[in-house]
Amino acid sequence: MPRQITSFSNETVKRLRSLREKKSRREQGLFLAEGLRIIAEARDSGTLPEIIAFSSVGGVHPLAAEIIESTEARGGEAIETTPDILAKMSGKDNPQMLLGAYRQPAVALSEIDRSASPLWMVAQALRDPGNIGTILRTGDAVGAGGLILIDDSADPYSVEAVRASMGAIFTQKVTQARWPDFLTWLRSGPGQLVGTSLKTEQDYLTAVYEQPCFLLIGNEQAGLPAEYESACDLLVKIPMAGRADSLNAAVAAAVMAFQVRASWQR
Amino acid sequence: MPRQITSFSNETVKRLRSLREKKSRREQGLFLAEGLRIIAEARDSGTLPEIIAFSSVGGVHPLAAEIIESTEARGGEAIETTPDILAKMSGKDNPQMLLGAYRQPAVALSEIDRSASPLWMVAQALRDPGNIGTILRTGDAVGAGGLILIDDSADPYSVEAVRASMGAIFTQKVTQARWPDFLTWLRSGPGQLVGTSLKTEQDYLTAVYEQPCFLLIGNEQAGLPAEYESACDLLVKIPMAGRADSLNAAVAAAVMAFQVRASWQR
Repeated sequence: MPRQITSFSNETVKRLRSLREKKSRREQGLFLAEGLRIIAEARDSGTLPEIIAFSSVGGVHPLAAEIIESTEARGGEAIETTPDILAKMSGKDNPQMLLGAYRQPAVALSEIDRSASPLWMVAQALRDPGNIGTILRTGDAVGAGGLILIDDSADPYSVEAVRASMGAIFTQKVTQARWPDFLTWLRSGPGQLVGTSLKTEQDYLTAVYEQPCFLLIGNEQAGLPAEYESACDLLVKIPMAGRADSLNAAVAAAVMAFQVRASWQR
Repeated sequence: MPRQITSFSNETVKRLRSLREKKSRREQGLFLAEGLRIIAEARDSGTLPEIIAFSSVGGVHPLAAEIIESTEARGGEAIETTPDILAKMSGKDNPQMLLGAYRQPAVALSEIDRSASPLWMVAQALRDPGNIGTILRTGDAVGAGGLILIDDSADPYSVEAVRASMGAIFTQKVTQARWPDFLTWLRSGPGQLVGTSLKTEQDYLTAVYEQPCFLLIGNEQAGLPAEYESACDLLVKIPMAGRADSLNAAVAAAVMAFQVRASWQR
């Protein structure tokens, strides 16, 4: 049976709330997901939370009730609390009535099985957690295997990234690596490293993409460093019609990923 | 000569700061843009701010100095102020050192010249200003004419939308319309209305897109209402490989827009 908690100073409440901070997420190895949609997505892909918090104000959705029960059956903790406390935990005025704390899967680069998918996303020094979540969501949609985060990057387990991923955080492999380690790993097996660049004449629409394809997306402001571009097997350009010379990082990732997939269907 | 302002209670400071609120933007008909990159983009496309605020801490970029001078020469107001006050105005801890208040161009649907571009973006009830800005940025990149916002939508002139547009707010036409008015206008001339849907077998990669093409993007949560889908000349589906059945709205807009453009290049 879920414990009833109505105090802001309860230890579990404080612990869940602390997961909005990167430091606490790292220390505890947990992260937050909010709302029935994402939490049901997680369950459908085989993942239950370690802690689940909910409010029964307005009624508990049957699917939520089922997940709460399963969580407890697996030894997880369930707490029933107030909308106010949920708002405090999620940092939103209109909180979701369901919130789960999940174990961060510790996936090392060496554990990535590149043959599991023809397409992998690789992102360098992304600053915006929303972009990371959106790239995960796009990766799920195009059938990518996962996302490899290079260098210092925003936290893929931040509330904002998890939200933008719309559940893909539970289906895509996520790992982090330094650039030299990534290159060493990449070259230890088959794989075409593809970057977008302004310095090439190769149109992205006519390029030949090989499997497994590793799509390298650069930092939002600076794009890819020259050294990273040099390491690519293929540089392509997305021609721009307007004044600007770049796309949003998550948009560029999606346009590339869908084109790579389309090229394999021809 | 720019006025020196060091007081938070100065009227111009309060006025600029108020532009973070939708109500004030509407009352004054102004909006904020931050940072040299976007402000230079605006100037290059022929738009100067009515008010420009800057700090000379760390030096004033020659291009910024030029824009400040041009703004004053055209009868605009320039104020030199402190990083603290700029932070207050932009609502960010690390503010840009340059900030402009621009007149919102009042573009009525009837003033849109559809022959000016083969592609137009149409978005229904978008809630996230970041998505609106990103769609504007993508529109600029693919050579779209502009963005028509249908029904109640987030404000394209909000600070977040302007920031995400990376200057495209100054190059893309932006207008708002109710759905019936939009349909009446659309049918008064040539134009193919294209929506994405889960309820069609037509793959977006093999569809035939006509010019001018109006790409209709649905609300982030609900997608397009059935009635709106019915009004489309063409419904296409972006096949999904993963668990999810949808993409981020700005990503879907970009994947479609780039595919439409690609189909015309064959």
